[in-house]
Amino acid sequence: MQAEGKNAVLEALKSGVTIDALMVEKGKDHDLVALARKQGVKIQFVEKPVLDKLSITKHHQGFIAKTSDFVYCELEEIIDGAKAKGNAFIVLLDGVEDPHNLGSIIRVCECAGVSGIVIPKHRAAAVNETVIRVSSGAVEHMKIARVANINHAIEALKKQNIWVYCADMDGESVYKTDLKGDIAIVVGSEGFGVKRLTKELCDKVVSLPVNGKVNSLNAATACGVLVYEAIRQRI
Amino acid sequence: MQAEGKNAVLEALKSGVTIDALMVEKGKDHDLVALARKQGVKIQFVEKPVLDKLSITKHHQGFIAKTSDFVYCELEEIIDGAKAKGNAFIVLLDGVEDPHNLGSIIRVCECAGVSGIVIPKHRAAAVNETVIRVSSGAVEHMKIARVANINHAIEALKKQNIWVYCADMDGESVYKTDLKGDIAIVVGSEGFGVKRLTKELCDKVVSLPVNGKVNSLNAATACGVLVYEAIRQRI
Repeated sequence: MQAEGKNAVLEALKSGVTIDALMVEKGKDHDLVALARKQGVKIQFVEKPVLDKLSITKHHQGFIAKTSDFVYCELEEIIDGAKAKGNAFIVLLDGVEDPHNLGSIIRVCECAGVSGIVIPKHRAAAVNETVIRVSSGAVEHMKIARVANINHAIEALKKQNIWVYCADMDGESVYKTDLKGDIAIVVGSEGFGVKRLTKELCDKVVSLPVNGKVNSLNAATACGVLVYEAIRQRI
Repeated sequence: MQAEGKNAVLEALKSGVTIDALMVEKGKDHDLVALARKQGVKIQFVEKPVLDKLSITKHHQGFIAKTSDFVYCELEEIIDGAKAKGNAFIVLLDGVEDPHNLGSIIRVCECAGVSGIVIPKHRAAAVNETVIRVSSGAVEHMKIARVANINHAIEALKKQNIWVYCADMDGESVYKTDLKGDIAIVVGSEGFGVKRLTKELCDKVVSLPVNGKVNSLNAATACGVLVYEAIRQRI
């Protein structure tokens, strides 16, 4: 795996993830080089074409860090960690397929202080170079569990008395819903939303009011708005 | 200009924008073909490689509509239209450069019911094919003014007794701020936020609380959360 771009590399350095080597474009300078040196990371100064060739996202900004693979955690780890810190606040993604959306969701969740994210193993985006870059490195600070079955994960959360909300168009206004306490929010895929069976498993469906003519929100935008509404209520 | 992809073409058809021709991949069917026929739009059924070659965004899904160029409006038109409908709610973008972010902002603003968006003529993304596609066609229903100088636009809004908020990291919590009445929100560029002089012109700086380690929100995500917080207060 590799982190590409200033922010993603900087966050990789800060997070304590293992960095095998940092490649920097000759002539480029940035605080992160000093930080890498301090941490004893091996630094190679190379010509831009070398980075262009190595870059997977094609947005390396002169910095690529070769890191160990992203380590997913177990669902139980997220639940225990969340409860130890106070109230649990977990986001489940039911088949988000676009790495840009996944990266964007990780970024806003990390910023808001979400306890962890649960994604499915199949038919969904996993953490890759694009996700790392779009998340602006937030992925290194976020607990992410990859599960075989989202429905089983929802059942496990409910057994722990975590209230599970499904985000969809036909629910109660999120502004009339109590999002305090131990909660999880399920966000659906770009094309199809939350699957019917998954939706039926949830304790409640919540919606954002829509006043326009197009009336469909991008999965990552909707997730950001919902997560911040929960934060507002929890302040 | 052209609209590409099912949603963008459908919204172009619904919005009343002039469509010179609709190109559909042979064998593809969709409600929008019937709608185009009903509107007397010229439809050409072509092979997929023809669309692949014509497509600018490379995500045409079998549908490309050749439309007239996007028509920007005047700032005064946005103000008058907004005030006629009740309270004004305008979003100004101070140099958003990524067409994906611009498209995403237009989509969430249209969905929330924002009166209009103001963008600068220079050093900022303008409405292009990527913006149309990412906005999911919402751009056809949104009033967008392109101004030479964002600061002059802010001054014009203030003269109309519209309260102008600047979104930045060092302001008062948006959750403690009254966003009812005639308001405008200024969102900064991806790299540099709102420029200093622009910020000083605004009536107040508002911030979203951040609880993570990375603590920077994407411009489009931040805009979405702020816009929906205003909607919540205005319900």
